[in-house]
Order: sequence, then C-alpha cells, then structure tokens
Amino acid sequence: MAGEKRLNKTNGVEIAAGDLAEALGGVLAKGDSAVNISGIAGLRGAGPGELSFVSDKKHAHIAAETRASALIVPQHVHLPTGCTTPVLIRVPHIEAALDRATALFAPPEPPPAEGVHPSAQVGRHVVLGENVSIGPCAVVEDHVHIGDNTTIGAQVFLGYRSIVGSNTRLCAGVKIRHRCRVGDRVVIHPGVVLGGDGFGYTLQGREHKKIPQIGIVVIEDDVEIGSNTTIDRARFGATRIGRGTKIDNLVMIAHNVQVGQHCIITGQCGIAGSTELGDYVMLGAQAGLIGHIRIGDKAMVGARSGVAKDVPPGAAVMGALAEPRQNAARSMIAAKKLPNLIRTVRALGKKVNQLAQAAEAGSLKPHKKDDRG
Amino acid sequence: MAGEKRLNKTNGVEIAAGDLAEALGGVLAKGDSAVNISGIAGLRGAGPGELSFVSDKKHAHIAAETRASALIVPQHVHLPTGCTTPVLIRVPHIEAALDRATALFAPPEPPPAEGVHPSAQVGRHVVLGENVSIGPCAVVEDHVHIGDNTTIGAQVFLGYRSIVGSNTRLCAGVKIRHRCRVGDRVVIHPGVVLGGDGFGYTLQGREHKKIPQIGIVVIEDDVEIGSNTTIDRARFGATRIGRGTKIDNLVMIAHNVQVGQHCIITGQCGIAGSTELGDYVMLGAQAGLIGHIRIGDKAMVGARSGVAKDVPPGAAVMGALAEPRQNAARSMIAAKKLPNLIRTVRALGKKVNQLAQAAEAGSLKPHKKDDRG
Amino acid sequence: MAGEKRLNKTNGVEIAAGDLAEALGGVLAKGDSAVNISGIAGLRGAGPGELSFVSDKKHAHIAAETRASALIVPQHVHLPTGCTTPVLIRVPHIEAALDRATALFAPPEPPPAEGVHPSAQVGRHVVLGENVSIGPCAVVEDHVHIGDNTTIGAQVFLGYRSIVGSNTRLCAGVKIRHRCRVGDRVVIHPGVVLGGDGFGYTLQGREHKKIPQIGIVVIEDDVEIGSNTTIDRARFGATRIGRGTKIDNLVMIAHNVQVGQHCIITGQCGIAGSTELGDYVMLGAQAGLIGHIRIGDKAMVGARSGVAKDVPPGAAVMGALAEPRQNAARSMIAAKKLPNLIRTVRALGKKVNQLAQAAEAGSLKPHKKDDRG
Repeated sequence: MAGEKRLNKTNGVEIAAGDLAEALGGVLAKGDSAVNISGIAGLRGAGPGELSFVSDKKHAHIAAETRASALIVPQHVHLPTGCTTPVLIRVPHIEAALDRATALFAPPEPPPAEGVHPSAQVGRHVVLGENVSIGPCAVVEDHVHIGDNTTIGAQVFLGYRSIVGSNTRLCAGVKIRHRCRVGDRVVIHPGVVLGGDGFGYTLQGREHKKIPQIGIVVIEDDVEIGSNTTIDRARFGATRIGRGTKIDNLVMIAHNVQVGQHCIITGQCGIAGSTELGDYVMLGAQAGLIGHIRIGDKAMVGARSGVAKDVPPGAAVMGALAEPRQNAARSMIAAKKLPNLIRTVRALGKKVNQLAQAAEAGSLKPHKKDDRG
Repeated sequence: MAGEKRLNKTNGVEIAAGDLAEALGGVLAKGDSAVNISGIAGLRGAGPGELSFVSDKKHAHIAAETRASALIVPQHVHLPTGCTTPVLIRVPHIEAALDRATALFAPPEPPPAEGVHPSAQVGRHVVLGENVSIGPCAVVEDHVHIGDNTTIGAQVFLGYRSIVGSNTRLCAGVKIRHRCRVGDRVVIHPGVVLGGDGFGYTLQGREHKKIPQIGIVVIEDDVEIGSNTTIDRARFGATRIGRGTKIDNLVMIAHNVQVGQHCIITGQCGIAGSTELGDYVMLGAQAGLIGHIRIGDKAMVGARSGVAKDVPPGAAVMGALAEPRQNAARSMIAAKKLPNLIRTVRALGKKVNQLAQAAEAGSLKPHKKDDRG
Repeated sequence: MAGEKRLNKTNGVEIAAGDLAEALGGVLAKGDSAVNISGIAGLRGAGPGELSFVSDKKHAHIAAETRASALIVPQHVHLPTGCTTPVLIRVPHIEAALDRATALFAPPEPPPAEGVHPSAQVGRHVVLGENVSIGPCAVVEDHVHIGDNTTIGAQVFLGYRSIVGSNTRLCAGVKIRHRCRVGDRVVIHPGVVLGGDGFGYTLQGREHKKIPQIGIVVIEDDVEIGSNTTIDRARFGATRIGRGTKIDNLVMIAHNVQVGQHCIITGQCGIAGSTELGDYVMLGAQAGLIGHIRIGDKAMVGARSGVAKDVPPGAAVMGALAEPRQNAARSMIAAKKLPNLIRTVRALGKKVNQLAQAAEAGSLKPHKKDDRG
C-alpha cells in the first residue's frame, strides 16, 4: 500500500501536556508541561507526539513498549520499571478521561447530507420531521414517518408504512421492511435487515407451506445494532428489542423474540423464535438460544454456549448444553482428567483381579503395589 | 417511543364471532356470536377485541393469562380452569383455521411498484416478462432475463446474464452476481448474496493464489432464502439449491454444495464446499457441515452440531462431533456423571489398597466400608 | 425451472483433445486426438463433450461414474477399472493444468461499466485514478481517493475520506465507512461492511454508554473478503488485515483486531476485540477467538473450535476449549469410552465390596469373576 500516512494524526489539534492534564481532570505527574500532544492511540499503535493510556493494571506491562509521548494512567496503577514515556498524567477516572481525550483528538464526523439528496427516491404521503437528512440512492416508500434530526444513510431502504423516530442514525444500506418501527436515538450499522419474514412452514403433503408472517419488528429507543445483523418480523404482533439494548454484528434474532431493556448481545449470537430475554441480559459471542425459553433479568450466557432451557434471573451459565458456570467449569476440569481416569480404572481392575485370584488360591500377596487412584 | 399505537389492530376489518367461527370451519363453543373481532395476535400479545389461539396443549396454560376476546382452540385441547376468554371457537385443524384467520385480518401487502421505476438502471438486451416490477435504484445488467409477474425490489442487483423466473420476489438489496439462475415462485429476503466466488486458493510459494470460480448458483423453484444468507458460485458447474428448500437467515453455503429438494436449513448454519444434502434434510440452527460429505434423505442434524462424516438417510444426529442422537444423549448424560465418577474411583482405589495391604499383613479386616460405586 | 440449458457449455470454444493435451503441458495417454472438447466441469457434473479431472487418488473412484469425454489425471494416480472415459490426458501438475483449462473454457467476465455511471453519486474533492469504473447507484462521498484500474461495483458505498488502491474490485453493495483504507489488488464480495463501529460500552448508572470508536479499518494489498463479512473500525488506530490474507463469508472481525499476512479465515469465524493473528494463520470454519489473545505464525485452529488463550506459533489446536490437536483427539476418544467406563467402575466397586465382605467373613471366594477393566 503505497503512501500510507500516519493513521493516528487525527484532526490537527495540538495541546500542551499541562493543558491536557487539566482538560482531562488529572495531574501532570511527570514530564514537561509544554510538550505538544497531537493525537491518541493504543499503547502498541501510538507513536511520538501522541497520547496513550493504561486502562488497568492487567495491561500496564505493555507500557514498557509504547512509543507514545504521554500516558494517561489511573491513580492506583503502577507502571513497569521499563516505562520511559516522558509525560505521565494521573487521573481519577480513566474512562471519563479517555472520553474527553477522544473528543479532543477525534477526527471530525463526516457531515450528513443536508435534506433529501436529489437521487433519493421518496414515495407519497411520507412525513419528515425537521432537519431530516436522506442520503443518495436511499429509497423511502409510501406512508413512511421519520422523526426530527434523523439521518437516513445512502442506499437505505425504508419499507411501506415503516416508522423511524428522532435523532436516529441509519447507516448506508440498512434495509427496513414494511410497517417496522424504530425508536429515538437508535444507531443501526450498514447491512442490517429488519423485518425479513420469520422462518415458519408447515409440511402439507410433500411440500413446506409458508406460514404467513404478518407481524412487525419494533426497535425501542437508544438501541444500537451492528453490521449485517438480521431481526425477523413476528408471525403476529412484534419481535421486540427493548430500550437501551446493544446488539453486535451478524446476530440472528428470529420471529417473536422479545428482548428486554439494556441487554448486551455479542457478535454472531442466534436467538430462536419466541424466546424472551429479561432486562440486562448478557449473551457472549456465538451463543445460541433455542426457541420458546426465557432468560431472566441480569442472566449471563457464556460465549459459544448453547442454551436449551430457561435460565433464572441473575444466573451465569455456559457450555455446549449450558449449565451454571460452576458446574460447567467442574465438567470441563473433569473432562481433562478422563484419559488418566481410564488408565487408573484399568490398573485398578487388574489389581482387584489379582487380589481375587490370590484370595481364591489361598495366597494373599499381590504381585505388585500400585497406589494410583 | 412516543405515540406507539396498537400493533395488532391491523386492517380495520371487524367480524362477528359467529361469522368468524363459520369462516374458520369451526364451531362457536362458548360466547356471544355477535361480539366483534378486529384482529389476531399471540396469547401474550393479544388485547381486547382480538382473536388469539392455542396451537397445542403444551401452550394451553398461557390461555389463563391472555387478554384476547376470543380464542381458536383445537377440538382435543383442554383449556386451563383460569381461562376467562369470553368467546371460544373449536376447530378441527388449527393450522388451517389460523391461515384463514390470518388472511382475514392481515394488513394489506405493500403494493409493488408498477413497471420499471425511473431510477432503476436496466442494461441492454434485458428480457422482461409480463407484469414485471423493478423497484427504485435496482440495477439490472446486460442480457438479464426476468419472468412474468416477478418483483425485483429496490436496490437489488442482477448481474450480467443472470436469469430470474416467474412469480418470484427479490426483496430490497438482494445481490445476484453474473450468470446465476433463480427459479419460479422463489422468495429471497433482503441482503442475500448469490454467486460470490467460492473460497479456494492454492499456496504458490509464499502467496495464496486464487483458484478461478467459473461456475454459477442455481436456485430451483419454490425456494425461500432468509436475510443476509450467502451462497457461493461453484468452481465449475453449479452450487444448487433444490426445489422447495427453505433456508433461514445468515446461512453460509459454500461452492459446489448440492442441496436436495424440500430441505430445511435453519439460521446461521454453514455447509462447506461440495457437500451434498439429499431431499427433506433438516439442519438445526448453527450447525456446521464439513466439505465433501453426503447427508442422506430425511436425515436430521441437531442444532449446533458439527458434522464431520456422511449421515445415512433417515438418521438423526447431534453433538459437537455429530453421532446418532441416542449415542449423543448417552454421552451427554455420562459426561454429567464424570465428576462423581472421579471421586468414586479415588475411593475405590483407596479401598483396594487397604485390602491389599491387609491381605499382605495377614489381617483381612478393611478399615471401613464404602459401598459407593 | 423451464428451459434450463446446459450449465457447463461455457464460452463456445471447442478444442481437439490432442491440442488440449499440449496446451495443458500434458500427454495424451489414451483416446482420439481429434475429439472435440467444449467445456470443463467436476466429475459428477460433466457431460459428453466436456473435460473433467481427477485431482487426487482420494477422488479417483468417482471417475468410474463420470459422463465426461476427457479426463485430466496426475501422472501418479491410478484410475478405477470401471472408468470408461474415452480420452485421458496425463499431466505433471494437476492444479497448473486445471488453471490453464479453466482459462480456456471460462465464460467471458462481465465487462465492467466504463467510467463513472451517470446514476452514480460522486461527491466533491474525489480523486480518481486512470481507468476507474464506478457502477450504477454507487455512492462516493467527499474526499475519497480511488486508484488506477479499480472497479467500484453497483450500489457500493464509499464513505467520507475513504481510500481505495489500484487494481482493486469492490463488488455490488459493499459498504465502506468513512476514512477506512483498502489496498491494491483487493477483491471484496457483495454485502461486506468495513468500518462499522466497534462494540464497546461502559455501564453508567443503569445505561450502557457508547465508547467512541474513532479508529479505522485498513485492508492491505492482495486481500480477498467474502460476502457479508463485517470488519469493525478500531477504537483508536486501526483494525488491520495483513497483506495476502483471505477471508471467507459471514466472518466477524471486531475492533482493533490485527490479522497478519497470508492468513486463511474460513466462513462464519468470529474474532473478538484486539486479538492478534500472526502470519499464515489458518482458522477453520465457525471458529471463535476471544479478545486480547495472540495466535502465533502458522498456527492452525480447527473448525468450530473455541479459542480462549494464546496459541503458540506453529501449533495446531482444536476443540470447544481449544487445546493441542493430539490432546483434543485423546479427549474425544476418551469421551466416547465414558459410558462403558461408568459400567466398568460400577462392576469393579461391586467386586471389591464382595472381596472385602468375604475377607471380613473369613471366606475368600468371590461370587463371580469379572475381568473387565
């Protein structure tokens, strides 16, 4: 790749280390307050002139390798002796300080197209709020409603009578089929499909006959949905994603699933039809849930787990046939011991036979001792 | 989400309970035949004035909680004593009755655009049947053929020399690459990709060299394909999906796979290159099949199973290394017993040692009894 | 599907068998050198007049069933006695011969649109190299750079300040968000999303607050990416895919992941945040890697494996909790023995009890022998 420039030199802003410490609510613990800082990056990616950070003690050892000119460090974290970074800023709350630093150095957001792009295709009886942006080649069918300050990206499809709330952002190429509803302050990443038909058939004779899927999808306020995730419309009523829930990429949510509020659903999870999640449920990546079960509030499902029955509120489960985390851990440890166990049992069997034979013969000395087991 | 209206009040139709019973081929078993019904929903989603249903006895207990005004119930299913729904309609075939009820109350389908939308880009030598609809911003390349009554959704891409049959529906944003073929009465949901190159490389020196993929994808009649599923073109010849097969969302079908007729392939399954499925095969969600194997007619693969060898016709297999369902179940039950088994063997080993030592010493009383095992 | 023509009759070329043998660098080992060959297909898909091939001895038995008129066969592979194919061409290097044969019979590639299609929407300050093709309904935002001879497919989205190199091909519907960078000679299949926000939140009170993701995605030269795969932008710096790496369909690569050069990442894999892959790493289909781990150069991860810790260079691991391949195989074999082991231990326990009781009673004959174990 010819001509790749520095990635991290972001928006041209330069701030003196002393001013930066103040802006981040921290203290300049070491270094020259006049040194200019012009960007932010991870410990491994940062270069000279840039700020980096140690988020917790687990990653502190990497600070010895960084080429950054300045580090933000939480007050209680010790840095490795090899760390030679010239400027240290100690802060009370690392995440808050990072948020501020990110805002300082972030490249400007790409400006949304103003108004309706001339190449966008907007149908009849469409109701647009104030300050709506509709990008190039977007298609908005008849009777769609869009709320104030909402951005409809390039090549988005909004089907017949769909509704999108205010301050929402649909990225390029999102497809929302007819009648589905999206709330306020929602972010939907490229390639997401809402409202595909639920997967339902009945075998009639030798053919699978489609069960009509006349319901919709409802995405409540403050939800975020990652790239290429799909959420199917309900057979009746609505497949629902509760307020504040965050969904990662390539997740499959089937018809009539009910997801509660503030859940975290990580990449490539699948949730089968009519399953219900309470609030604050967390699903690890690539987990799969069968249909018609209920996952209680604040339950946690481990990555790659298969869940085949209800999970009570607050429980943490994992495993191919998910069970409480302790049991699953016990089973995994036991499984590692199995090859040795087989050998132990074989030796034990031999010993018992010898003992039995000796007993029968009236001679009671076993041939050799073996105290494994 | 301000102003969310009732979801289920669907198309404004109102039908008296007596007329409804007759229309559904059932009998008014309880309630006032003049009560007006104006929509249909699931037991938990239904509200006053609406119809709901009990599909089988497994879900009958939920009928005690519903707020629906009327229920369709199969003749042989008993309702819970707490069920206070005013109107009951008994029917001989619940699925047939539901189909009719759905048709009565379903909201009208969004009307397809008429003809070729002015923003659609249609190439040269394209052959369109009668009554074809091509949506806004669709792209149809040169030499494409499209059959009668077929709907090409907004933003669909039909590559060079691809062929689509009659009475087929391609939803918004479907991408079909050059030369691929889609049959009659096919439904393809948004974001599906047909005809991406198969994943094949040979290592030449230190580089992976691409193996050309000059084949196509053939989708036979009456197939349905779910959102964001991908089916790769063959190296030579065709990757083929047989007539009447139904495929769910986010499924990956690799090059040269041959899927038979009337199969069911559930969400997030993956089928590696050149594997063959017979007819009426069922794959549970998130299953993975390696390449170059054969799954016999009517075989069933459990959800999340990994299949690494042929499956005979009619077999039901499951598990991480899929095996016949009974063996897999036996293995799972055995695995749960493993931690206890380890303890048992340890105790047994101790006992045998005591016995052996006692025997050697000429004293034969073991120190304590332990009859676990 | 009415009127389906032969799939394999590809570009109308006919070549005499003798000329074909010469063109492929092989020898006509059997058959009439004047027989005309007009296409190429797999052993099962080939018909009369077509060429097929036996790639290795594992598949040689299928040659007895083929209807092809000619076969390419490596010098050392024996054909089954039932093989009646009239023409045999023996070649020293089967893959090289196949490449040449494919090139001879391949249907012509669809011609890319010339220049910028009038329906494409190209922003301000866009820099286009020579001979760039931009397809219908593509959207190119402001300040984008595109290198020479690059093809931007229909309905592609290139976000603000994104950069695409030379001789690169973006298929229909690819979405690349702002500032992301794609190298030279890259191929990206339909529906791929680059630069969706990384999945990162902090719980503030009762709400998940979004962590800004201000980094980008960098795709280096000679990479290929399969349909509907998603690669998220970094929190800071770049999520990076190294030169020559090949990625299959529906793969999920999270923020800040660093993939080395010449890796192979098979369908539906998932790689969680900040994980690093060395060079020449191979991931089998549907594998999952947790975040913040390192997979060494040339390591191999089996299909459907879950990787929860570092993998050293050159190691081959597999299993639900991935471990070295031999251990995993040993564990799988042991697991199959578990039901029998449980029975063995039960029998052994009984025998030991009898022995102990007999010993206590002074009678030493066990009731029966059992030498399993």
